Amino acid sequence: MRIAIDTLGADLGAERIAQGAIRALDQSKEISIILIGDESILKPIVTPKIADRVSIVHTTEKIETTDKPVMAIRRKKQASMVLGYQLLKDGKADALVSCGNTGALLAGGLFLSGRIKGIERPALTPVIPTMQGPKIMLDAGANVDCKAKFLLQFAQMGKIYSERVFQQTNTRVGLLNIGVEPGKGSQLYNEAYQLLEDSLDGFSGNVEARDVLQGNYDVLVADGFAGNILLKSVEGTASTLFGLLKTTFTATLASKLAALVLRKPLRGIKDRFDYHEVGGAPLLGIQHPVIKAHGSSDETAMMNAALFAEKFTKAGVIQAIQALNNEEE
Amino acid sequence: MRIAIDTLGADLGAERIAQGAIRALDQSKEISIILIGDESILKPIVTPKIADRVSIVHTTEKIETTDKPVMAIRRKKQASMVLGYQLLKDGKADALVSCGNTGALLAGGLFLSGRIKGIERPALTPVIPTMQGPKIMLDAGANVDCKAKFLLQFAQMGKIYSERVFQQTNTRVGLLNIGVEPGKGSQLYNEAYQLLEDSLDGFSGNVEARDVLQGNYDVLVADGFAGNILLKSVEGTASTLFGLLKTTFTATLASKLAALVLRKPLRGIKDRFDYHEVGGAPLLGIQHPVIKAHGSSDETAMMNAALFAEKFTKAGVIQAIQALNNEEE
Repeated sequence: MRIAIDTLGADLGAERIAQGAIRALDQSKEISIILIGDESILKPIVTPKIADRVSIVHTTEKIETTDKPVMAIRRKKQASMVLGYQLLKDGKADALVSCGNTGALLAGGLFLSGRIKGIERPALTPVIPTMQGPKIMLDAGANVDCKAKFLLQFAQMGKIYSERVFQQTNTRVGLLNIGVEPGKGSQLYNEAYQLLEDSLDGFSGNVEARDVLQGNYDVLVADGFAGNILLKSVEGTASTLFGLLKTTFTATLASKLAALVLRKPLRGIKDRFDYHEVGGAPLLGIQHPVIKAHGSSDETAMMNAALFAEKFTKAGVIQAIQALNNEEE
Repeated sequence: MRIAIDTLGADLGAERIAQGAIRALDQSKEISIILIGDESILKPIVTPKIADRVSIVHTTEKIETTDKPVMAIRRKKQASMVLGYQLLKDGKADALVSCGNTGALLAGGLFLSGRIKGIERPALTPVIPTMQGPKIMLDAGANVDCKAKFLLQFAQMGKIYSERVFQQTNTRVGLLNIGVEPGKGSQLYNEAYQLLEDSLDGFSGNVEARDVLQGNYDVLVADGFAGNILLKSVEGTASTLFGLLKTTFTATLASKLAALVLRKPLRGIKDRFDYHEVGGAPLLGIQHPVIKAHGSSDETAMMNAALFAEKFTKAGVIQAIQALNNEEE
């Protein structure tokens, strides 16, 4: 399986992104890596030992985080991300991993890969860390203006993803809301509740934002605006609290010694809520496997993302989403 | 100043709610307390020493958390919350504090107190704890389907509240959003951004959910759905993390000893994010001072809520909101 890696647009720089991705070669014998980016940086990384499993597609054009997504995708025809989509379309790569501009990656999904027939809106689908292990949530921000039908499709796609990639059985699909009772929330959420209750096997009702980390669901569905607010506030709160803890633990000699004793379990808590540990978020509903990795991914995160891309592609999520809509017709 | 206390509907029970509220009498010589609830429980609490400053309005009817808000407000005419609103309307109380059903309190605001002329939607306005101290945010869940104009009015009311009650100067009003750049977010948020930029002195732009706890704003504006998701996920994340820390700290003898050293600073962090420390959330945009206290308020929280009701009422927020709309016409 050929995994294309967009090495431009990540916080850490192309060299470390490429080095991380290459580490995946040791973990899986079935993959090869296509590095898209500046040849002069990437070539020295490709040692003779791995040369037969790594190729380079040269470009120096990059989509900046400040670029307007749709315009960037349309005009920057040599951008690493655009070339990545081109490899997928030409059948020269089987999956694409990018840490770049999320909006542009989503726009590329729509305009370069294309929606799966019958799917109205592709959704960005990250993992959310909970007390009951990682769960999946969608949409995390691809679609800020949603209709109830989109949310039903998110639920259907999320369920397939959860079952095929995470081997989930008896999948419970929850709807993010401001209360647990039916009838809570905005008009959109009332309609979505009804639609999910009528048409989705496994719908388990509303999930309050307060209970999201308890993880009493397998797939959490929301519109992209509320979903993004949820994920970012969980992330921001965890990061603020860990920052405060660090300050506390290093304040005095006594607290430093005490913190030493607690270091290992605290590390465990932190890792549990660390988005860097997670492989990446697929864009569900498009024709090709495209994985968004965190902009601040380090080497380990990139290795995980490349391996995750393989796992995701093998799991046949895209074929199952295609079949879903054939069934309906 | 006469502060009416709805003693029914709180998690802790009428007796402790009343005892907490009464503690406020020691803190402020200018207030008297009207306890609304079951006489047989409340009478023993009113000792001769405070008898001239505490009166009881007897009722045993209660709005349950499971009651439908509008129906409950309309049909349960002897409910403690409804009697509280009646005291305000009859000029027999100056402010009302309730820990009861939030939806019913909001419905009471609309149907029993009434909107201030020109205000389209009253908003629930809690404090949000941040690294730069407590800030205010609205709407926290009263209005789940909003128009851009509502958000502008939330901003105007929030600004008045922040300036009059918290003595804020050069008030910065931020708009909750999924990115900082103009043009981010849903259609509603794009329109609201434009409207705030055109009409609100002190508008400081979008605030990402991830940065909310950094507190680089004084007033944070959102629709009630996203606002509620934000607050509840901050609350849920903090509570989950503190729960995990507690488990870690009590796991072994060594960790217990270490935790002992860190107890005081950790307590400090916890208090900072503890919603119980906060006096309460006023319902801005209605004719009378109505303060929602947390359903799980303890005695200290109720004392704080009663004192906060006095402070809020004295600050003339309602008069300023009334004047705001006269100016516009």
